[in-house]
Amino acid sequence: MELEPSSVWGDRWTSCDSPIAKKYMTVACQKRSIVCLAADRNTLLGLGELIDQVGPYISALKTHVDLVDDWTPEGWAELCDKARQANLLIFEDRKFADIGGITRNQMAGIYDIRSWSDLVTAHFISGPDIVDSLQSAWGDVGRKGGVLLLAQMSSRGNLLNPDYTKTVVDSGKTLKGVFGFIGNGSRPRELEKLREIVGPTKMIWTPGVNLAVGDGNMGQRYGDPCEAVIAGSDTIIVGSGIHRSDNPEQSAKMYAAASWNALLERNNG
Amino acid sequence: MELEPSSVWGDRWTSCDSPIAKKYMTVACQKRSIVCLAADRNTLLGLGELIDQVGPYISALKTHVDLVDDWTPEGWAELCDKARQANLLIFEDRKFADIGGITRNQMAGIYDIRSWSDLVTAHFISGPDIVDSLQSAWGDVGRKGGVLLLAQMSSRGNLLNPDYTKTVVDSGKTLKGVFGFIGNGSRPRELEKLREIVGPTKMIWTPGVNLAVGDGNMGQRYGDPCEAVIAGSDTIIVGSGIHRSDNPEQSAKMYAAASWNALLERNNG
Repeated sequence: MELEPSSVWGDRWTSCDSPIAKKYMTVACQKRSIVCLAADRNTLLGLGELIDQVGPYISALKTHVDLVDDWTPEGWAELCDKARQANLLIFEDRKFADIGGITRNQMAGIYDIRSWSDLVTAHFISGPDIVDSLQSAWGDVGRKGGVLLLAQMSSRGNLLNPDYTKTVVDSGKTLKGVFGFIGNGSRPRELEKLREIVGPTKMIWTPGVNLAVGDGNMGQRYGDPCEAVIAGSDTIIVGSGIHRSDNPEQSAKMYAAASWNALLERNNG
Repeated sequence: MELEPSSVWGDRWTSCDSPIAKKYMTVACQKRSIVCLAADRNTLLGLGELIDQVGPYISALKTHVDLVDDWTPEGWAELCDKARQANLLIFEDRKFADIGGITRNQMAGIYDIRSWSDLVTAHFISGPDIVDSLQSAWGDVGRKGGVLLLAQMSSRGNLLNPDYTKTVVDSGKTLKGVFGFIGNGSRPRELEKLREIVGPTKMIWTPGVNLAVGDGNMGQRYGDPCEAVIAGSDTIIVGSGIHRSDNPEQSAKMYAAASWNALLERNNG
């Protein structure tokens, strides 16, 4: 049985001013999943296999198109078709960070990100014009999309301190082209504070979560996905927890169930 | 007659700890130019024509590889050969802004930036690891390169305030992999302050200059290139002032002479 988005998402649905956000929330309800897969494979075949394995249990696919070693326009178009057939939003994690005019053009070119991405990440460092520029790029090909602004990062010595975060959020949440913000899923307390300043309308998506908390290799710290959702995350971005698992399908199911139940608990608890 | 780098560059040469910076300063002396051309053309042919026209009068070529609509591996390799024959450093203005591991891989892939770039731009937003990651990427193909960190920008509402700038410079100037910083050439006072905190060792390169000061279209403010050099810029990055000129060759000569004379005046004045 499919639940109504308004009952699942509460404020996030009723105050929503973005068609792409409503689309995403609807897809999440259809799939009972708020898991975005960080598809960190560097071949078209590897990416296609991942969609086959876990497509039914995730709501969005996060890509780095410039990390695909055997990329071709045709091969990528096929992969995007496969993602759409699996009812996934495609989220290119490009971290745009140039001035407006250049950014608009960077959405075109060989990779033509504007033609297949539903969501992209951007830093707000160059100022608010980057959001309009990205929206113009989608408009150039008659499409619509949403921008996720980096509000927090987890990397060592990053410069997204609370003042920086507040500046990004205060300005970004007033912009229609902003779908939401990227927060740090490994620290629920900071995530709660982020939700406070973001308010009810915009999405917060969070990497840095793993069901095996503290199990990070290479010095990464992970947080519990359910805690992240309760603290205000609307989607957990999961990479190695799914695609490096012995059984990616089973792992994706577990992440989907855990995060979905946390979302229901948050909005009806 | 070719001048000795030590007499032209003063402190910048004698305190230099970077092989790529010494290489650049030597090239500049050979060409009597500290002009980096912002080669904002979106075809291989257009870029090749620019090098033919102004190659002798510039010291570096700033590219956006992802804006070249007819990019092919072979065509790009030819263009890079042409740039090297013209004794130019190749500077890819990619504005890397991801975490270290992703950044290292972004230097590879289809565009394989690590294999042909001598310099790249990066934001310091994700923390200091991005510099090591970029250096590792060049190392992966047995090459060396230099990172220019964004310390100032000129875009409306950008978040590189004086505190941010200071954090970037204080940390960046201690890192061997950092070639220098991007400053704002349109504001000599702010550039003087930037030089104060950067100190004598690292480069400052500046866009935002035009010999026809105040002539900017599309709301851009330009500064005088000589004032920028006197205030501490080591290279002026010039785009439309050269490539949109009726006579690009003549314009490049003028920019080269003006900025070179300002450099000699600064260090011997």
